Amino acid sequence: MSQKEATNSAWGGRFQESTDAFVAEFTASVNFDRRMATEDIAGSLAHAQMLVEAGILSAADGEAIRTGLAQVQAEIDAGEFVWSVALEDVHMNIEKRLTDLIGDAGKRLHTGRSRNDQVATDIRLYTRAAIDRITAEIERLQQGIVTVAEREADTIMPGFTHLQTAQPITFGHHLLAWYEMLCRDKGRFQDCRRRLNVSPLGAAALAGTTYPIVRERSAQLLGFDGVCQNSLDAVSDRDFAIEFCAASATLLMHLSRFAEELILWNSAAFRFVDLPDRFCTGSSIMPQKKNPDAPELVRGKTGRVYGHLTALLTLMKSQPLAYNKDNQEDKEPLFDTVDTVLGCLRAFADMLPHLQAQRDNMLAAAKQGFSTATDLADYLVRKGLAFRDAHEVVGKAVALAIDKGCDLPELPLADLQGLSPLIGEDVYAVLTVQGSVNARNHIGGTAPAQVKARIAAIKALS
Amino acid sequence: MSQKEATNSAWGGRFQESTDAFVAEFTASVNFDRRMATEDIAGSLAHAQMLVEAGILSAADGEAIRTGLAQVQAEIDAGEFVWSVALEDVHMNIEKRLTDLIGDAGKRLHTGRSRNDQVATDIRLYTRAAIDRITAEIERLQQGIVTVAEREADTIMPGFTHLQTAQPITFGHHLLAWYEMLCRDKGRFQDCRRRLNVSPLGAAALAGTTYPIVRERSAQLLGFDGVCQNSLDAVSDRDFAIEFCAASATLLMHLSRFAEELILWNSAAFRFVDLPDRFCTGSSIMPQKKNPDAPELVRGKTGRVYGHLTALLTLMKSQPLAYNKDNQEDKEPLFDTVDTVLGCLRAFADMLPHLQAQRDNMLAAAKQGFSTATDLADYLVRKGLAFRDAHEVVGKAVALAIDKGCDLPELPLADLQGLSPLIGEDVYAVLTVQGSVNARNHIGGTAPAQVKARIAAIKALS
Amino acid sequence: MSQKEATNSAWGGRFQESTDAFVAEFTASVNFDRRMATEDIAGSLAHAQMLVEAGILSAADGEAIRTGLAQVQAEIDAGEFVWSVALEDVHMNIEKRLTDLIGDAGKRLHTGRSRNDQVATDIRLYTRAAIDRITAEIERLQQGIVTVAEREADTIMPGFTHLQTAQPITFGHHLLAWYEMLCRDKGRFQDCRRRLNVSPLGAAALAGTTYPIVRERSAQLLGFDGVCQNSLDAVSDRDFAIEFCAASATLLMHLSRFAEELILWNSAAFRFVDLPDRFCTGSSIMPQKKNPDAPELVRGKTGRVYGHLTALLTLMKSQPLAYNKDNQEDKEPLFDTVDTVLGCLRAFADMLPHLQAQRDNMLAAAKQGFSTATDLADYLVRKGLAFRDAHEVVGKAVALAIDKGCDLPELPLADLQGLSPLIGEDVYAVLTVQGSVNARNHIGGTAPAQVKARIAAIKALS
Amino acid sequence: MSQKEATNSAWGGRFQESTDAFVAEFTASVNFDRRMATEDIAGSLAHAQMLVEAGILSAADGEAIRTGLAQVQAEIDAGEFVWSVALEDVHMNIEKRLTDLIGDAGKRLHTGRSRNDQVATDIRLYTRAAIDRITAEIERLQQGIVTVAEREADTIMPGFTHLQTAQPITFGHHLLAWYEMLCRDKGRFQDCRRRLNVSPLGAAALAGTTYPIVRERSAQLLGFDGVCQNSLDAVSDRDFAIEFCAASATLLMHLSRFAEELILWNSAAFRFVDLPDRFCTGSSIMPQKKNPDAPELVRGKTGRVYGHLTALLTLMKSQPLAYNKDNQEDKEPLFDTVDTVLGCLRAFADMLPHLQAQRDNMLAAAKQGFSTATDLADYLVRKGLAFRDAHEVVGKAVALAIDKGCDLPELPLADLQGLSPLIGEDVYAVLTVQGSVNARNHIGGTAPAQVKARIAAIKALS
Repeated sequence: MSQKEATNSAWGGRFQESTDAFVAEFTASVNFDRRMATEDIAGSLAHAQMLVEAGILSAADGEAIRTGLAQVQAEIDAGEFVWSVALEDVHMNIEKRLTDLIGDAGKRLHTGRSRNDQVATDIRLYTRAAIDRITAEIERLQQGIVTVAEREADTIMPGFTHLQTAQPITFGHHLLAWYEMLCRDKGRFQDCRRRLNVSPLGAAALAGTTYPIVRERSAQLLGFDGVCQNSLDAVSDRDFAIEFCAASATLLMHLSRFAEELILWNSAAFRFVDLPDRFCTGSSIMPQKKNPDAPELVRGKTGRVYGHLTALLTLMKSQPLAYNKDNQEDKEPLFDTVDTVLGCLRAFADMLPHLQAQRDNMLAAAKQGFSTATDLADYLVRKGLAFRDAHEVVGKAVALAIDKGCDLPELPLADLQGLSPLIGEDVYAVLTVQGSVNARNHIGGTAPAQVKARIAAIKALS
Repeated sequence: MSQKEATNSAWGGRFQESTDAFVAEFTASVNFDRRMATEDIAGSLAHAQMLVEAGILSAADGEAIRTGLAQVQAEIDAGEFVWSVALEDVHMNIEKRLTDLIGDAGKRLHTGRSRNDQVATDIRLYTRAAIDRITAEIERLQQGIVTVAEREADTIMPGFTHLQTAQPITFGHHLLAWYEMLCRDKGRFQDCRRRLNVSPLGAAALAGTTYPIVRERSAQLLGFDGVCQNSLDAVSDRDFAIEFCAASATLLMHLSRFAEELILWNSAAFRFVDLPDRFCTGSSIMPQKKNPDAPELVRGKTGRVYGHLTALLTLMKSQPLAYNKDNQEDKEPLFDTVDTVLGCLRAFADMLPHLQAQRDNMLAAAKQGFSTATDLADYLVRKGLAFRDAHEVVGKAVALAIDKGCDLPELPLADLQGLSPLIGEDVYAVLTVQGSVNARNHIGGTAPAQVKARIAAIKALS
Repeated sequence: MSQKEATNSAWGGRFQESTDAFVAEFTASVNFDRRMATEDIAGSLAHAQMLVEAGILSAADGEAIRTGLAQVQAEIDAGEFVWSVALEDVHMNIEKRLTDLIGDAGKRLHTGRSRNDQVATDIRLYTRAAIDRITAEIERLQQGIVTVAEREADTIMPGFTHLQTAQPITFGHHLLAWYEMLCRDKGRFQDCRRRLNVSPLGAAALAGTTYPIVRERSAQLLGFDGVCQNSLDAVSDRDFAIEFCAASATLLMHLSRFAEELILWNSAAFRFVDLPDRFCTGSSIMPQKKNPDAPELVRGKTGRVYGHLTALLTLMKSQPLAYNKDNQEDKEPLFDTVDTVLGCLRAFADMLPHLQAQRDNMLAAAKQGFSTATDLADYLVRKGLAFRDAHEVVGKAVALAIDKGCDLPELPLADLQGLSPLIGEDVYAVLTVQGSVNARNHIGGTAPAQVKARIAAIKALS
Repeated sequence: MSQKEATNSAWGGRFQESTDAFVAEFTASVNFDRRMATEDIAGSLAHAQMLVEAGILSAADGEAIRTGLAQVQAEIDAGEFVWSVALEDVHMNIEKRLTDLIGDAGKRLHTGRSRNDQVATDIRLYTRAAIDRITAEIERLQQGIVTVAEREADTIMPGFTHLQTAQPITFGHHLLAWYEMLCRDKGRFQDCRRRLNVSPLGAAALAGTTYPIVRERSAQLLGFDGVCQNSLDAVSDRDFAIEFCAASATLLMHLSRFAEELILWNSAAFRFVDLPDRFCTGSSIMPQKKNPDAPELVRGKTGRVYGHLTALLTLMKSQPLAYNKDNQEDKEPLFDTVDTVLGCLRAFADMLPHLQAQRDNMLAAAKQGFSTATDLADYLVRKGLAFRDAHEVVGKAVALAIDKGCDLPELPLADLQGLSPLIGEDVYAVLTVQGSVNARNHIGGTAPAQVKARIAAIKALS
């Protein structure tokens, strides 16, 4: 309970001087925590209603508080609320205005709580709402991915390992890899939501309160699933903010890989996709350029979110219980993470459905580089050769093709049979890129049939 | 599928020179990935059995592989296995030895898989096993906490905010705050386990395989809950390792706070607890010292785990799909995180039950610093004063006590009544530290009754 | 050279649609890079003057630009400048306004440069100015430390290792440890300044320009020590921003240790110092509290700066040359680091000279805990015992003192001589805390004489 | 001074039980700090010589210590030294063996020092030696870069911004960008070396010692430039290790960019360079592949070094002075950073001189994408058009070329003159890629003449 007022007479007994002006500004949080005004008011409304129901506050006081807070919210929504740094934070700003509006009832609102449990409640409500918005954006991006994957289920492109052409894959299959990553990201946010959705209200400064409060009631009114079981833990931990930022950092890690591929594919060297003009910028001096600004910026913003995670972990390291002023530093990293995650998801969700595959370029690239060498090896194994021995034959076939300046499907049958008598006319079916992708026809494989099956399963679920 | 052998004839077609000796050493992983030998063998056993059941491998081959791998495992367990850097990694070392032992059947084991899905399988199995061991240690530490909390349910100590004496609390209550943190930590590891427990086997190099494999079967044999739905995603993502390290970093954050408090409480300035001698070290030159080495080291190891999380997030940032050599760097941070987490948990779980509370010192500290000032304010509110007005009276009472050189309960009734006529003889019951803690008697509050109720609930659950 | 205008007709040839509204906002930087307006104008003035001197621009154009930019600066200083997100960044906003004011000459200002070298110049100028302000604040804080160290050169306090009482030290000596740390911090900022103080101007988009520019001249006008020797490097690297943030993170690390000690010493358990009231806050409900808000907040802000360092390192990881849009993300971490460092230094520099030592409490604590045990060992060695053997005697002396419930100087001579016949009456001179600190009289030692000598040396240097 | 022995009788007075076996292992450091054995012995030799010269130790003792330590060093070099975890760390292992070898003189070696200043000395010596090796490797890599840059001074390639073709550059110029980055990296290591090269010896446990030591003498013997001016600072700070890791992280950042470019240029999409076979690996199953393992691994190892920096910053955050056990955790991140930096530098320094440019592919790519559009704009400005107006003409020219399916130099003069009457026959000289690079002929520009001039200047300096 660190309620302080810069010139509060309540300090008179001990404080010989008022707060230094720079310190007041340095320690004030209202410039950023006012962002939780709506959550703060929601928390106060629930607290007041509980106090009335428990007989701690009169019905008249409760009604005055409800009316007064509605007025405060309206002023805030209208941009008319006057925020004061001297009142330090969002809580004192709102309480002061409430008391100006409704008098003594406003002073009684704080009965049985403290700013410590109040701010813990606000942050949880704020983070919970952020998760719900993020979840919706993840789902929108996933829908976009599925839309393009369906369109490109049969499109063949080179699959890379080490950025070297490895085997042909379908573009739809590649796109669905991103879908799967986002499923797990969504799951992490949901787990975080579940874990944080318990009410700290009633923990007061650190030890609970002497009033006969009913913590389950205010929790219920605020949509919490339960109450924090320990008051010290309730006011001092911020592990949920760390978990949120860790989930965000992992999401951004995925988006950075996604971005990297879009940038590569959009380059002159690849020309696999066309990004919609409205998501790129040009250069007035180099009119030939179409810069993939949105993916580049998303890739860059990864650093920002990693940084916020580091900040929160560092912040909490080796703090003794319970609340310390350090914890005021939890909000800005959290808020900026929310903004960044939502912005990046929106940029991608808006852009993705309009991604144009350059199918001819993809196919041409897939046909180069002996990408069906693995298929030849598998063919030989099916004909009876041991796996490791089959590779030797393939190595020789590739060397021969290099010599002849052609790719594998262009080698004459006689040449192939010279390498292994097991090879027959049917080999050409496995040496084409179409044959190759069609043959990988099991759960998770790149065959168009599997891509379509997965899309059908996804649609059935949603 | 990056199967390579330093002097493999299969490269003959393209490679003009053998690998540089330093590069071979620089890129080899066997010195650290051999730690996953047991998981690698388990994966091979399941893969082989599936191949036999699917008719891809003969029963005889399957039997030979089973016998051979048992022999390899025995050699490893006995410390007799000869690891070779030239064979680069755990997979090739084991396969080579297997082939030496059983001949061609060993060469056929790799049918329908690649090192890319093989290593992804190994890491998941390894991490899953680590989570199970970590979970057990968390639970053991929690039991220790509950044991001490029960013993100290009535012990009164000062509760701090800003490291300033705020209100009296019970030591049992403080201990249970740690219990709650660990519950959430355990939950995070469990969520990570659930999410990673799907099989990448069958994803092969990146696109799946042309053999009629049954991915669900090998998954089932390995205790996976299902299979990865996309082969590119299966071989290239390491988000589960990041999630594991994020859960570990959060756990270490909690342990660092725990450690900080033990160090403070064990200091000459506090003297709240005695750590068992066997968890401390002395100084031969300063024999008066009893250094809290274990907590200090745990606090220090927090940095290590934060660092590993940073390492993995950086590693994965903006890598294009699918597998890149970069990913080899995922193992050491993961392994060291597992060791560190287990070591820190063990050190605390071993030590905690033997923690001795210095109850007299705690009580004496709780009685200082006007720690029941809040109780006086609450008393006045119950008598009818508005909350914010009551604080003014309390401020004056504290100032008076400072003047008189006493604490609040020692002020004469007349003096208190001079500050407010609402104060009566019954005020002394709320001014004692016992009265204060007993009055915070609601869920999550510090009252001994609540501590005992929580402990009973915990015991009922386990 | 990524000059772009949302609706620039120059893109007409290739762009089929104008930029998406959200993308425009998502990618705009003017809301934060306007902070470099003064540097941007300084850079343009120097560039224009060089162009005139080199005959690339007419004298009349040069004069118009000078007058126009002075007007723009005046508008910005007066808060009258209208910033437009549609114009994307600080550069285009200023150029557009300049062209509105002076017409075609404004359009000619950009001759021979690009936004890529322009922004690189602005950031270097900005960081250089920040370093100069930070250096001044570090020096002010150091002066405050020296002032208090001089006052407390003879004040005895316990020195801790492992937060256990180890040996007596002087408070002045402890304070000077902070002074030394800050010397190195200052050195790191100075090294960073020297390394960044070369001009990227003239690197243009990435390859230099075809105009006969004189890079040394604009560099000289801007106070740079030289020019970047490679245009690709000049526009694409941000290592100086990383170096600045690393120096800042190390400074904050030091301040966090400083803060931790102030918080401990200000606690009820230590009571070693009194922080001035105006740097603390109280609690209206717990009037006994005097929370060390400023140190706590500084400790908390450490996380923020560590986070920004992580952000920049991540940002730059594996970006191909030359400029990418990612780099736009370099500014906010840098700016916030500057603000945070300056704020923290100011809070400490303002507060420190007013720190009040509670000398009696310090002395009392120093006398406890057998803090002169090491002195007894050294005494025995001087009398001829081997170092490691002397410890055995000391161990027995401490055990004896514990038995008797006294500290070492209170043991009778007979008792001490019973442990070693080498001990004489002169032992008591080394067993006092005063004797102990006075005896550590060599460079860097804790003796008051050394503290005073170091202060004299510091004063002689400044 | 935390000298401890697991069963030291010196603890008898206070310790009721010997150290827990797991705790002994958990807290021992010998498994990693033995790596500083050579530095530890060097420090002891200098300390002993100083003690003798100061009359604190007899000449005979000094001689015995010198002989004994030579023997210990020989045993370590021969791999015959038996390290004991029970003796906890490198210091006690060596001292114990020394005392076994030479008796009481060994016990006297520790006079006037403590493990706290001893370990601080060892780490500084170790880091200093590491910096010298790193510096040599950086210089070797720089030489390799210059060699290739000289060979490729006239080679034309596309310069990218946003990975889009921007302007033609020379490959030699691009390579020299890496040279410049490494200059600054080297400078950062040198600054770190200068700052750390002061001696902590004599700071003892934390406060200095009562012996008449001569700190300047042992410092001089060890090659230090001076002595730490404050004993608390000397034993407790590790900012030099952080600075070293920050310099390393920045170097790895540069190498990761370098690696990224090598990977891209080596891909099927670019084909700009050929990496020597011996620095790549192949795939036995996909014989077409030549994986750029070394660059990929260097890129991946960036995460590791970033992680170690994070670890050290976290470790030191908010530790009170002086030495705490936490600090034991400083070594492993430092050691692994040294290994990683040296390995990555070596891999690149070995590989780079053998890099083969695919000049035809580079040139062909440079000619595409209207890369000389900027040159056309500059041409128009020289003819009198305002800079921003010239862009409009260029935009139209590009649009026209797109319509005609050609690049800019292939547009007929009549067409160009239709866009602007200022255009003459001389325009074609500026529209070629050769003309473009030659025209950027000022310090730092991409012209071959500038590349050669810079190389000449570099050679003149070394």
